Amino acid sequence: MSLLVIGSVAFDAIDTPFGSTGKIVGGAASFISLSAAMLHNQVGLVAVVGDDFDFNFIDSLKQRGVNVDGLQVKDGEKSFFWHGKYHMDMNSRDTLVTELNVLGSFDPIIPESWQQPDYVMLGNLSPQVQLTTLSRLTRRPKLVVMDTMNFWMDIAMDELKQVLQKVDVLAINDEEARQLSGEHSLVKAAKKIQAMGPSTLIIKKGEHGALLFGEEQIFFCPALPLEDVFDPTGAGDTFAGGFIGYMARSGSNRFQDMKKALLYASCMASFCVEKFGTERLQEISMDDVNNRLEEFNKLIRVD
Amino acid sequence: MSLLVIGSVAFDAIDTPFGSTGKIVGGAASFISLSAAMLHNQVGLVAVVGDDFDFNFIDSLKQRGVNVDGLQVKDGEKSFFWHGKYHMDMNSRDTLVTELNVLGSFDPIIPESWQQPDYVMLGNLSPQVQLTTLSRLTRRPKLVVMDTMNFWMDIAMDELKQVLQKVDVLAINDEEARQLSGEHSLVKAAKKIQAMGPSTLIIKKGEHGALLFGEEQIFFCPALPLEDVFDPTGAGDTFAGGFIGYMARSGSNRFQDMKKALLYASCMASFCVEKFGTERLQEISMDDVNNRLEEFNKLIRVD
Repeated sequence: MSLLVIGSVAFDAIDTPFGSTGKIVGGAASFISLSAAMLHNQVGLVAVVGDDFDFNFIDSLKQRGVNVDGLQVKDGEKSFFWHGKYHMDMNSRDTLVTELNVLGSFDPIIPESWQQPDYVMLGNLSPQVQLTTLSRLTRRPKLVVMDTMNFWMDIAMDELKQVLQKVDVLAINDEEARQLSGEHSLVKAAKKIQAMGPSTLIIKKGEHGALLFGEEQIFFCPALPLEDVFDPTGAGDTFAGGFIGYMARSGSNRFQDMKKALLYASCMASFCVEKFGTERLQEISMDDVNNRLEEFNKLIRVD
Repeated sequence: MSLLVIGSVAFDAIDTPFGSTGKIVGGAASFISLSAAMLHNQVGLVAVVGDDFDFNFIDSLKQRGVNVDGLQVKDGEKSFFWHGKYHMDMNSRDTLVTELNVLGSFDPIIPESWQQPDYVMLGNLSPQVQLTTLSRLTRRPKLVVMDTMNFWMDIAMDELKQVLQKVDVLAINDEEARQLSGEHSLVKAAKKIQAMGPSTLIIKKGEHGALLFGEEQIFFCPALPLEDVFDPTGAGDTFAGGFIGYMARSGSNRFQDMKKALLYASCMASFCVEKFGTERLQEISMDDVNNRLEEFNKLIRVD
C-alpha cells in the first residue's frame, strides 16, 4: 500500500532550557516520513527545499526506504527556516523567526507514479497547497489524514474548511481543536469538527496522550511517561507518521485498526522527544520500536 | 474486609462559571466514604462536625451502608467551611474562605470496634492527625492509603514525612507530587517520593487521568472524556474512595489489582464532576457504575 507524505522539509533552530541547536533539519514531512518509513516500506515524499539544504539528510531518508522523487530542489533559493524557544515546562514555546523562503511559492508537483497513492498524509501546510495536492491525485485514496495549525485558522479558514471536507482523519492538538470548534470541552469540540468533514478526529495532547473520536466511540492512548523530554519539536508530526505508517502497513482504514495505530503513533513520538530534531528517529531500529510497544502494553493493560 | 476512612466532613460553597452553591456538604471524607461505600459494604467513618451540620447527609451515608460510630458532633461549634471559586478552565481555583472551626482541634477518636481495620484511607488532614490515627490502630492494616496537599508541605513537612514512612500508597495530584519531590518530571518525582516511604504512588492529573507507580512499573488510567465538567470539587477524594473501596472489596493489596482499582477510581470520579458537591454520588446506582465501567473499557481496550 503506497503512502504519500507531503509537508515541509526544512531547517529548525531550537532553544530549550537544556541547550540550543544551530540550524538542524526539521519540518513536518521530515518527521512524518522518518516515522512512517520505520513501519512501512512504500513511503513517497513530496516537498521543496532550497539548494542550501542538508542533503545528507535526504540520503538518510533514502536509506530508510523513502522515495524522494517528489522532492523539489530550488537552485539559488533557501529552505524554510523556523527558530523557536521552549519555556521551562517544555510545553509552551515562542517562535523567534519564521522564514518561508521556498515554501512561500510551493507548487506540490506529484510524480506520475505517485498520483494514485493508497494513503495520503497532508502535513501542516497552507490549506491551498493541501487542496492542490488532493486535486492532483487521479484516484480517491483509501485514507487521507491531515494536520493543520492555528495560523491557518486565523488567515485561511475558508480554504481550511474546504480541505476538511475532503479528508478522512484530522490530527491536531488540543489547542487547535478548541480554536477550530470554539468549544473548550474536547468532546464537544470533536462533534463540531466531525460535522465539518472528517469522520475521524485525533486530538493530540502532548504528554497527556491522544484521543481518537470516530464511529460514536472514543479511544484514548497515553503518552509514555518519560524521565526527560529533551526536545518536543516534531513529536506531533512523528505521531502522525506513526499513525498513517501503521495504517498503510495494515492496509486498513477501519476505526478498530486506528486504535492500534494510535499506540504506534504514541510510541514513535516517545522516541522523537529524546534528542534534538530528527536525531533519535534516525538512529532507532525496529527492535527499539518493539521494545517500546511492550512498555506501552504494560502501561495500559489492566489484566 | 473493614475499611476505615478518616477525613473532613464539612461545608463547601462553590462558585463556578456555570453557577454558585450556597453552603452544601463537602469534605474529603464525605466524598471518599460515599464513593467507597458504592463498591464495598464495610466502610467506617471517623470525622468531626459541629452541631450546625446537615444531618440529612449523615442519614444518607448510613443508607449507603457507612458506619458513622466514629463521627463526633461538637455541640455549640461550627463545621469546617471552605469557599472556593473556579476559573473558566475549571482546572484552577482560588480559595476565598477557609474556616477550620471544629477541625482545628480534631482528636481522631476511633471506636473500639474500628481499631483493627483491614484497610485505611487517610483523607487530607494535618499530618499530625494522620499520625495519631495510625498510632491508635491496634494492628497493622493490610493497606494504608493517604492523601495530603501542598498546604501541609509548606507548614508541616517533617510530620508529613513521618506519615509517608507509615503508609503503603500515597495518592496526590501532579502539582503536589512536583512540590513534594522538587522534580518537574513525574517519573523522577515518583522515584523520589517512593524513596520517602510509600511503595506505591498514585499521581492524579485531573482530566488527564492518573498514573500508578509501583514494583518498577507504571500503569496509566485515563479520565473519561466528558462533555461538561460541572464541579470538580471532591473528584480527587472520590477517586481515592473508589480506589480503596475496590481494594477492600477485592481483599487484595497487590499491585496487579491496583490497576483495576484505578479504573474504578476514575469511574467514580467521572460521576462526581457531573453535579455540584456530593449530589451525583448520592443518586447513582451500581448499574450506573457498571455501565460507566463499560465506557472505560471501550476507551482503553485496543482489541
